[in-house]
Amino acid sequence: MFEFNIIAADLNCSARTGAFQTPHGSFETPAFMPCGTKGSVKTLTPDELKNLGCEIILANTFHLMLRPGGEIVEKMGGLQRWIGWDGPMLTDSGGFQVFSLSKLRKINDEGVTFQSPLDGATHLLTPEKSIAIQEQLGADIIMAFDECPPADAEKSAAKKAMERTHAWALKSLKAKQRKDQALFPIIQGAIYPDLRKESVRYITGLDAPGYAIGGVAVGETKEQMREVMETVCPLLPKEKPRYLMGIGEPDDMLAAIACGVDMFDCVAPTRLARHGSFWNNHGRHDITKKEFSVSDQPIQSDCECYACSRFSTSYLRHLIIEKEILGARLLTIHNLHFLIDLLRQSRKAIEAKTFQTFSKKFLSEFYAKER
Amino acid sequence: MFEFNIIAADLNCSARTGAFQTPHGSFETPAFMPCGTKGSVKTLTPDELKNLGCEIILANTFHLMLRPGGEIVEKMGGLQRWIGWDGPMLTDSGGFQVFSLSKLRKINDEGVTFQSPLDGATHLLTPEKSIAIQEQLGADIIMAFDECPPADAEKSAAKKAMERTHAWALKSLKAKQRKDQALFPIIQGAIYPDLRKESVRYITGLDAPGYAIGGVAVGETKEQMREVMETVCPLLPKEKPRYLMGIGEPDDMLAAIACGVDMFDCVAPTRLARHGSFWNNHGRHDITKKEFSVSDQPIQSDCECYACSRFSTSYLRHLIIEKEILGARLLTIHNLHFLIDLLRQSRKAIEAKTFQTFSKKFLSEFYAKER
Repeated sequence: MFEFNIIAADLNCSARTGAFQTPHGSFETPAFMPCGTKGSVKTLTPDELKNLGCEIILANTFHLMLRPGGEIVEKMGGLQRWIGWDGPMLTDSGGFQVFSLSKLRKINDEGVTFQSPLDGATHLLTPEKSIAIQEQLGADIIMAFDECPPADAEKSAAKKAMERTHAWALKSLKAKQRKDQALFPIIQGAIYPDLRKESVRYITGLDAPGYAIGGVAVGETKEQMREVMETVCPLLPKEKPRYLMGIGEPDDMLAAIACGVDMFDCVAPTRLARHGSFWNNHGRHDITKKEFSVSDQPIQSDCECYACSRFSTSYLRHLIIEKEILGARLLTIHNLHFLIDLLRQSRKAIEAKTFQTFSKKFLSEFYAKER
Repeated sequence: MFEFNIIAADLNCSARTGAFQTPHGSFETPAFMPCGTKGSVKTLTPDELKNLGCEIILANTFHLMLRPGGEIVEKMGGLQRWIGWDGPMLTDSGGFQVFSLSKLRKINDEGVTFQSPLDGATHLLTPEKSIAIQEQLGADIIMAFDECPPADAEKSAAKKAMERTHAWALKSLKAKQRKDQALFPIIQGAIYPDLRKESVRYITGLDAPGYAIGGVAVGETKEQMREVMETVCPLLPKEKPRYLMGIGEPDDMLAAIACGVDMFDCVAPTRLARHGSFWNNHGRHDITKKEFSVSDQPIQSDCECYACSRFSTSYLRHLIIEKEILGARLLTIHNLHFLIDLLRQSRKAIEAKTFQTFSKKFLSEFYAKER
């Protein structure tokens, strides 16, 4: 039911391409998974995502357990049927969000007690409960419940969180009942190389169809994040997919791909779009800048996305300034197209064994303006 | 360049169908024009509007003159080119908005001095300036500058506003220079039949390709609004299109069509959608109602719109509750489809000379729940 096949590897680095088979079809790796936090990749329809070449999307257990609740999604036939997306999906476990989005939490070995940001009600999320909800939601890939400390956590706190994450990974695997879902446990250990190594050893000792690297994009520097990847990736089994959680800036993804990472998710492309920022080959830009007001060119000259093929920078700028929803939609389409296309090009380069050249060339152009 | 042809008339009432030819193609009447206030029909792309069967859209001079300004739109090739809509368009004159959306206004025979709601800057809008801006914007149909009093205006104030509207209609016609735009003058007179009659006589005495009925949807009752239509419509020349400004509730439109109205615009379908309300054959509904939480049916069972053919009421409810932009998009698509389809059915019924039967049947079902 689940199968990961490596298609090509670029032996000049650790980059590889592959395909992961799920009950809802397969997706190519390296893959970027747009975030459909509350069951909708913000502003877009499932058909638009398909047209963008998106093959897998993600949803959040934390948000969906609070509203509408796992029971309702289950009653409506599961996440995919309910939201009209018939391709592969992944749900996170709620671990990260419990620590980043909720208040008044108590953590013990059983789980996390937190206050709902919606109505202040108290909830207890445990590994068992997270898995039960993820089984109600019904995504193809589900995640173990983990404790995700901030980047500035002291080593002793990071160690404690890692040990709890290990225990909860085991509990998550034990709690899992459905056979048509693949559960990925999560490696923690913050910015401490020895903890990260210990965590890889423990987590990869569990028999799982894939492994995730958590505890990144939580406030650490880009250098610290890359050090984590360089510590962890060489120790991971080659035949299993690796998911780097929460990462989606173009430069970070290219660095991670070189280390052998296969899956990514990040709110950056969709969130930046709603705030009026877009990427093109020359870096990231704020569309509200005055210089764009009479530009009749698309925001990226060689881009084939719907926004670029139909609308000028001038009009997109106007829509964003006026807070018109269409502006958020069109920049979202462009930013997702940009990332998905970057991974498409990356896969091609890996197959041609030219990934490092490709990556260097892309980044030199991407950063040219800032330098 | 402009031509209005009546295709069919239902002699049981005053309803008729027609086609209005403009430089950007023709549209069938009775027509509903979705509001693209700031150059975007809220949440939708031009292609989605085309797919809905929409043939003409409207934009607002008041909003576009303040941002980005007529010069920029002109520089970008005019409204249609800039927003990517290649069909017919209409711009209003800013008259209505100056009175309803701005502050600290002074009105004299020259025009209206008002404060921009964006930055408090003082602007003077005159008939000449409104026409100049509408020529920069470049829509096919443009409107005379008018004074639009509230429904509770005393008769003396309504008379003064009407007389000014007449003088400004003349000034608007004189100021017009472009030959590829049709200017419609506007009938005022509030709820006073004798003023309305006087206004029709004056306005239809001006040689114009179409006439508009203004000063409705400004706080009067449905009965008062219908009385206005019944007073005005019989006095209008049959061979010219009639545009009832600001009206778009299904029952009001059917009543107006029976009187011989040809064109409508209203923010109701798009605004209601963003606030979670939708129409179906059984009236208007609030999608956030608890009863919809596990409904796996579309919001209208026999509807062919994208929202109804792809998504359940349960999911749409969730999107609206979560303030997900996709929810606003999908309800907007449905509500516009509902109105555009209602006018499509109306045209068919008029051609079959069964409009009154059709209208009665539609309304009895539409109001069944409320009775």
